[in-house]
Amino acid sequence: MGKKKRTAISPTRSENYPEWYQQVVRAAELAETSAVRGCMVIKPWGYALWENIKAGLDGMFKATGHVNAYFPLFIPKSFLEKEAEHVEGFAKECAVVTHHRLEEGPDGGLVPAGELEEPLVVRPTSETIIGATYAKWVQSYRDLPILINQWANVVRWEMRTRLFLRTAEFLWQEGHTVHETEAEALEETRKMLDVYETFAESYMAMPVLVGEKTEGERFPGAVSTLCIEAMMQDGKALQAGTSHFLGQNFAKASEIQYQSREGRNEYAWTTSWGVSTRLIGGMIMTHADDDGMVMPPRLAPQHVVLMPVVRDEADRDAVMVYIEEIAEALRSMKVFDRLIEVVVDDRDIKPGEKGWSWVKKGIPIRAEIGQRELDEQSVFMARRDTGEKEGVSRDLFVSEMTKRLELMQADMLERAKAFRKAHSKEIDSMEDFKSFFTMQDEEYPELQGGFAWSHWCDGAACEEKISSELAVTIRLIPFDRDANGSGACVVCGGASVGRVVFAKSY
Amino acid sequence: MGKKKRTAISPTRSENYPEWYQQVVRAAELAETSAVRGCMVIKPWGYALWENIKAGLDGMFKATGHVNAYFPLFIPKSFLEKEAEHVEGFAKECAVVTHHRLEEGPDGGLVPAGELEEPLVVRPTSETIIGATYAKWVQSYRDLPILINQWANVVRWEMRTRLFLRTAEFLWQEGHTVHETEAEALEETRKMLDVYETFAESYMAMPVLVGEKTEGERFPGAVSTLCIEAMMQDGKALQAGTSHFLGQNFAKASEIQYQSREGRNEYAWTTSWGVSTRLIGGMIMTHADDDGMVMPPRLAPQHVVLMPVVRDEADRDAVMVYIEEIAEALRSMKVFDRLIEVVVDDRDIKPGEKGWSWVKKGIPIRAEIGQRELDEQSVFMARRDTGEKEGVSRDLFVSEMTKRLELMQADMLERAKAFRKAHSKEIDSMEDFKSFFTMQDEEYPELQGGFAWSHWCDGAACEEKISSELAVTIRLIPFDRDANGSGACVVCGGASVGRVVFAKSY
Repeated sequence: MGKKKRTAISPTRSENYPEWYQQVVRAAELAETSAVRGCMVIKPWGYALWENIKAGLDGMFKATGHVNAYFPLFIPKSFLEKEAEHVEGFAKECAVVTHHRLEEGPDGGLVPAGELEEPLVVRPTSETIIGATYAKWVQSYRDLPILINQWANVVRWEMRTRLFLRTAEFLWQEGHTVHETEAEALEETRKMLDVYETFAESYMAMPVLVGEKTEGERFPGAVSTLCIEAMMQDGKALQAGTSHFLGQNFAKASEIQYQSREGRNEYAWTTSWGVSTRLIGGMIMTHADDDGMVMPPRLAPQHVVLMPVVRDEADRDAVMVYIEEIAEALRSMKVFDRLIEVVVDDRDIKPGEKGWSWVKKGIPIRAEIGQRELDEQSVFMARRDTGEKEGVSRDLFVSEMTKRLELMQADMLERAKAFRKAHSKEIDSMEDFKSFFTMQDEEYPELQGGFAWSHWCDGAACEEKISSELAVTIRLIPFDRDANGSGACVVCGGASVGRVVFAKSY
Repeated sequence: MGKKKRTAISPTRSENYPEWYQQVVRAAELAETSAVRGCMVIKPWGYALWENIKAGLDGMFKATGHVNAYFPLFIPKSFLEKEAEHVEGFAKECAVVTHHRLEEGPDGGLVPAGELEEPLVVRPTSETIIGATYAKWVQSYRDLPILINQWANVVRWEMRTRLFLRTAEFLWQEGHTVHETEAEALEETRKMLDVYETFAESYMAMPVLVGEKTEGERFPGAVSTLCIEAMMQDGKALQAGTSHFLGQNFAKASEIQYQSREGRNEYAWTTSWGVSTRLIGGMIMTHADDDGMVMPPRLAPQHVVLMPVVRDEADRDAVMVYIEEIAEALRSMKVFDRLIEVVVDDRDIKPGEKGWSWVKKGIPIRAEIGQRELDEQSVFMARRDTGEKEGVSRDLFVSEMTKRLELMQADMLERAKAFRKAHSKEIDSMEDFKSFFTMQDEEYPELQGGFAWSHWCDGAACEEKISSELAVTIRLIPFDRDANGSGACVVCGGASVGRVVFAKSY
């Protein structure tokens, strides 16, 4: 990669990608570990990003007819046991509440007391507890559909955790819907996947592939799991959102029955769908660079930072007045239906340190403004994603801000698409397949292959072989799989109706 | 109360107030109990109300310089033990996580396994876990103040629960701030109480008294607790929000130290403040009547319902067009900085049933619209708080909607103030005091006295006597207590610098 440049983040992506990720999260002040194993603290800059993600998604959920509600944090153990695959999937890693008070123990310290008759599990997902409620609400086809979403925290006792990507507690939304017919439930499952796809591409500037999971990768208890998958900058895939068609499995487990138009008792059809704070990990690994985070303008907590550069204290007041005028002008403008958010950073710290703090946080536009800029009625600005710096007139700086931010959003999506394209390949032989996932790229030794579009016979044995030998999995089966030609399974040579997407993954 | 009128809620307030409350919550579809002891399901209509409460408060927190963040759900037992009064206050009723998986037991069912080295408590409040984080963030006076709020769920294992008022799990916000000086922390404590007072009166139309709690009623570990107290329609007080000055107690427990401007290591000064879904209980008991909920327009999930009344199916299309035109006109207007929210209810159920469902939900304005209204270009409307019904021209119905909703909001506050005034009394003898809290009102047998403004000697013994004999407590000590004259303690006759507020309470 030529002569080594100084970077704000060390190590760089090509030196040690996993460690680079942790350092970006830290340097951008997005989150940090806590004293509680696997639980993170989401810091104000990271939480503001989550608030923008929530606002964007919530608007899309409401526009598609959903309302929010809130269900209990705890799930009685017996509820979890009602669906066999479901409990199998979640029992191994869940927080179990067994007592309801602490009292003084024999050695003076506090010990758990007041044992519960039935242990409660802190929700890892809410199908069973919400299902029990829906069973009471649904009597007749007139009560359907139920289209409810919940914003909540959930807990899965993961052993290896990583900020945002895999934490014991995380924040998410979980949609839970009930329908009269299979067709309606299938339509809902696909509709919400479309919402996730649109959100990932239009808001996060993160291109995603859409498709269906193989049986082995399905949500425990689902009939089918649809997903969006994004490529991270190390070539690995990130499952960024899932939408599950649950058939009648959970309706039967929870006894969600309704009287049909023909007067018969029928089990309802349900779906569930969710995305989580993991999306933030996806944004970091899609956009951040060796200097830190790069925020897509549509979700950035702030769009512009204005930094006074005052060499002579006598100039300060005039410079600050000039800056506040520019800030006010920008704050009356909109981008992506939000008012432009401007921070004036007049902290008393070294200009270099101040500038770098915003580079690392990934604010889209930085501007330094001093007496010289005031004299010239100009602004010295830098664009975070490209690193371009230029002096522009005050008028253009303000009047073109909306366009500049929109352009940056579009450019970020295009760059991410180009990266994915450059690391996607149709592969037809096992030798090439192995080489794709194991050859070290000299320029970028941390690259883990990419997306291999290969044929597959639909056999679990071939899937398992690839997984155990190369730690590569089928990320998804494209919906239009059979539109692009049949072929021979890359593992066994058996018949394949079309290519599927293989990758290493998070 | 004269001849018995038919009401949508049975029993009425005067027949059985506690049962009336539960029936209103149910009939308005705000919340319901769940299969998990003490945990509620907040239904879409109730959750939409909470979303509006959140949006209003969040805007006020941000306007006063606060940002949001998120901290872990779990608190290690040892953290809770760091502050002696604090653990004393919360250990008796907390959910304790002791295991991190379920596995098959000897009799085939699942049993808790993977015992944790240290039990975790599901946060009943977050001073200790947030304090541990702040200790890492704070090095120097330059790092202060920290002004952070968290929106979260918390759990307190209450034995007697009531929807919204007292539940094992509830939703709330908790602000946690750190300051350089005692004066700044005291100012913050009072500033956030002012925010709560403004919110209660301006958004909820719920008048509140402000003041300080007595030592016995303080938050466990606080130096002082400030509160807002509202009077419910049974004359009992509801503590609706608290703001705590924590002194250096939690800074010492969590080792939040900073290097001062003089270069010395000092403990910081902290505050915390919170309101919860209990506010919804307060709104119900302030505004609801014997027909159900009455929503203050500023927080109402929807402002107006338009209901087609179609007697001849041939008229339906024209009536629906007329209704949609009115809906569109209203939706482009604002009230209290929100777009007016209109629901067109064309469900195929009996008109009476439909109308009553909205009465019970408390939507501010209902309108019935049929062929006759279309012919007359009019609307037949009803105002929920007063019950007034009138035919108005379509133009006036639309053009005066903002004013009408603002007026309704103001009227609701005035009525609640008048109720409080009618049930508040300066009481100077023990005989009158006892009679105030024990005499049954013939007209309104469920009335539990009201607010007694009486003198108190500041003695814990007198406070305790009143509490044990009459179940009456000191709700607050007004900030301007000494401005209204000194007197003799209503219990012991000792010297009192001014009156305090006594009441029965939730």
